[in-house]
Amino acid sequence: MRTRPLKVALLGCGVVGSEVARIMTTHADDLAARIGAPVELAGIAVRRPGRVREGVPAELVTTDATALVKRGDIDVVVEVIGGIEPARSLITTSFDHGASVVSANKALVAQEGAALHAAAEQRGADLYYEAAVAGAIPLVRPLRESLAGDKVNRVLGIVNGTTNFILDRMDGSGAGYSEALDEATALGYAEADPTADVEGFDAAAKAAILAGIAFHTRVTLDDVHREGITEVTAADIASAKRMGCTVKLLAICERAADGRSVTARVHPAMIPLSHPLASVREAYNAVFVEADAAGQLMFYGPGAGGSPTASAVLGDLVAACRNKLAGATGPGESAYSRLPVSPMGDVITRYHISLDVADKPGVLAQVATVFAEHGVSIDTVRQQGKDGEASLVVVTHRASDAALSATVEALRRLDTVRDVASIMRVEGEERPGNGPAETHQRVSGE
Amino acid sequence: MRTRPLKVALLGCGVVGSEVARIMTTHADDLAARIGAPVELAGIAVRRPGRVREGVPAELVTTDATALVKRGDIDVVVEVIGGIEPARSLITTSFDHGASVVSANKALVAQEGAALHAAAEQRGADLYYEAAVAGAIPLVRPLRESLAGDKVNRVLGIVNGTTNFILDRMDGSGAGYSEALDEATALGYAEADPTADVEGFDAAAKAAILAGIAFHTRVTLDDVHREGITEVTAADIASAKRMGCTVKLLAICERAADGRSVTARVHPAMIPLSHPLASVREAYNAVFVEADAAGQLMFYGPGAGGSPTASAVLGDLVAACRNKLAGATGPGESAYSRLPVSPMGDVITRYHISLDVADKPGVLAQVATVFAEHGVSIDTVRQQGKDGEASLVVVTHRASDAALSATVEALRRLDTVRDVASIMRVEGEERPGNGPAETHQRVSGE
Repeated sequence: MRTRPLKVALLGCGVVGSEVARIMTTHADDLAARIGAPVELAGIAVRRPGRVREGVPAELVTTDATALVKRGDIDVVVEVIGGIEPARSLITTSFDHGASVVSANKALVAQEGAALHAAAEQRGADLYYEAAVAGAIPLVRPLRESLAGDKVNRVLGIVNGTTNFILDRMDGSGAGYSEALDEATALGYAEADPTADVEGFDAAAKAAILAGIAFHTRVTLDDVHREGITEVTAADIASAKRMGCTVKLLAICERAADGRSVTARVHPAMIPLSHPLASVREAYNAVFVEADAAGQLMFYGPGAGGSPTASAVLGDLVAACRNKLAGATGPGESAYSRLPVSPMGDVITRYHISLDVADKPGVLAQVATVFAEHGVSIDTVRQQGKDGEASLVVVTHRASDAALSATVEALRRLDTVRDVASIMRVEGEERPGNGPAETHQRVSGE
Repeated sequence: MRTRPLKVALLGCGVVGSEVARIMTTHADDLAARIGAPVELAGIAVRRPGRVREGVPAELVTTDATALVKRGDIDVVVEVIGGIEPARSLITTSFDHGASVVSANKALVAQEGAALHAAAEQRGADLYYEAAVAGAIPLVRPLRESLAGDKVNRVLGIVNGTTNFILDRMDGSGAGYSEALDEATALGYAEADPTADVEGFDAAAKAAILAGIAFHTRVTLDDVHREGITEVTAADIASAKRMGCTVKLLAICERAADGRSVTARVHPAMIPLSHPLASVREAYNAVFVEADAAGQLMFYGPGAGGSPTASAVLGDLVAACRNKLAGATGPGESAYSRLPVSPMGDVITRYHISLDVADKPGVLAQVATVFAEHGVSIDTVRQQGKDGEASLVVVTHRASDAALSATVEALRRLDTVRDVASIMRVEGEERPGNGPAETHQRVSGE
């Protein structure tokens, strides 16, 4: 084993950073054995040195992150600051000074991944970010490396713990959104300002990263259609239950049937209770992957929190350090496919639509005509009368989002339709052409 | 991109091999893009050339596997023959001639992993075997690389599809073992001679491989305690249901509480229905991993079949080819921990024991005394009378397998105990010291 240690600079020392520092100290011997050389924490850059947690070596703390990454003797920089700046500048400066980078920064990777990968490649450095997607769950490495010889067709994930906790509570107790959010906040699962989570921004960044890696093409945050969970009602959850479904906030990345384009979106959706994602409870994350040869895979675990995120960071740190020792680099960006990202209108899925309608004859015929005129085929309709009013619940066959939107617009113009009470997509059912042939593997030589 | 292709020799062309050949042809462009050079199938060694499947290029087929791997121009050898010989000799010959090896051979890796890794390292070659454990499910790479900075404490897996199918059927229909095995055979989930699956040999090989990788120590097939499912009865399944459990054949690899030894075992066990492994149906596989920092992770997917296994082989092939191009090697064996493997007697778990006893006063007291004398603490007892006979169902607190065995031996000697009808371990409950702190991750900066 080499005795000169590899030097690591840590940028940020909050919940994740302090856990990274702690594990680097307590597991130093294990890390050295796995890397083939000792690894040394050479400096920790923080904004407010007075607030550094107990156990973090005070003598390593600095407020000058730029000077730290410019020292010239740093082998790997671990960036757990988050946000776009100063993280972006610090990472490119790190590459300029010969360091590889391990980042947990989903927003930055989703927005600037291509530029960062290019900067890394130009300097012969590594850029790893397993921690940016679903915390401790190994996803980036399995998608990029384990499935490197396969063709991924779809990624369907619960990648935000806060929203899964809220929806799980709504499903379990019948609570409304606000009530469930309050509980999540009280228990520490939601932040004081929950916007990034409940409006789907956090999940959208992860969807962009997953889509890029899964389909070997560039997908940025702006390419991802995004809807949050703030408008999900107790009635939606109840409707889902009647259909044998539950409501989850899903990140969905799909390759088009013709293989020539991809889509990426985040929105609440109904999924059948029989789908493995339906039983993902509380703040857990899980990602379901469908590949040509592998079939259906699922990865499950804690999607956030200091320790799990630190675990992912340290896995990447070991890889980056091993590469440094070997004078090699890991698999960088793989974007050779150059597939366009189609707009939401092109997405094909099923819809569950609740309409409040006038309780008189002929309404169903009128509504059905509007669906037919827009080429949206109806699977089932349920009609319910209540106190002079009536409601129609329509579940469609697969249709494009554009056709569905046009249908809904036309429905709103009907005098007999008082309100389009809710529209929710139905996901996680068998996809044509990617079906059960792969789901029931016969054993052969197992 | 380099234009001279990397050359691949394929040893074996059955269900998996022919699928590897097919994907190498149909996905040639994708593989080239991911590797950075084209990859060419240079030869296919088979035993019976007359039986090669349609679509496999006949001009590449040879019966002389040794000559193929000795050609000298082969970059990577893919071994999907299975069994110990000639696979072992062919792999070492491949290393001798400068090739890296991708293998799907669980029996060989479980028995000879250390020697094969040493041979690879000596020649600067790679040895990959993701396909040897749980087919397409990425496990070897996540354990070895993604969790390289963490400390794995336990691996709990359903790693044999045949037995899971049988137990799932028994659980679903109340069928007995033979009936469920017949159904599995008829549907192609069990082989004509199901011994390797139902007696747990297949799962034991995978347990050895998983334990070695998870704990950075050497574990071979001989170190794994093995019990199959042939003695699981419909009554056991019914008892499990009454306890809110189901019965699964589990591969369990554990680090001892003091960290100084490990255990590896395969046996049927009751697990709570709330455990994520309980809902793994049919022939699917899933592996649950508990790590210090990451918490609880689960990996789920098809554990066998031509396409899924080929997917895993191809992921490894891409890695081996990339390393060849870079003049580097991937992470080899990591066995620095050198932890002894403790015998089954040292394993600590809970037990569910059914006794047929004489229906007379004082029997429960006698039985309870035997447990107490052996230091096995009783959690619950259920007493049932039936036609002059009575049964006692005892669930213990955590005890060592040695203490439990001694208890059972003493129970058999009691006149009042007519039969020890069944003994089954209870697994998948929270482990002391590795508990819920990690299971409910609070969100922080997610």
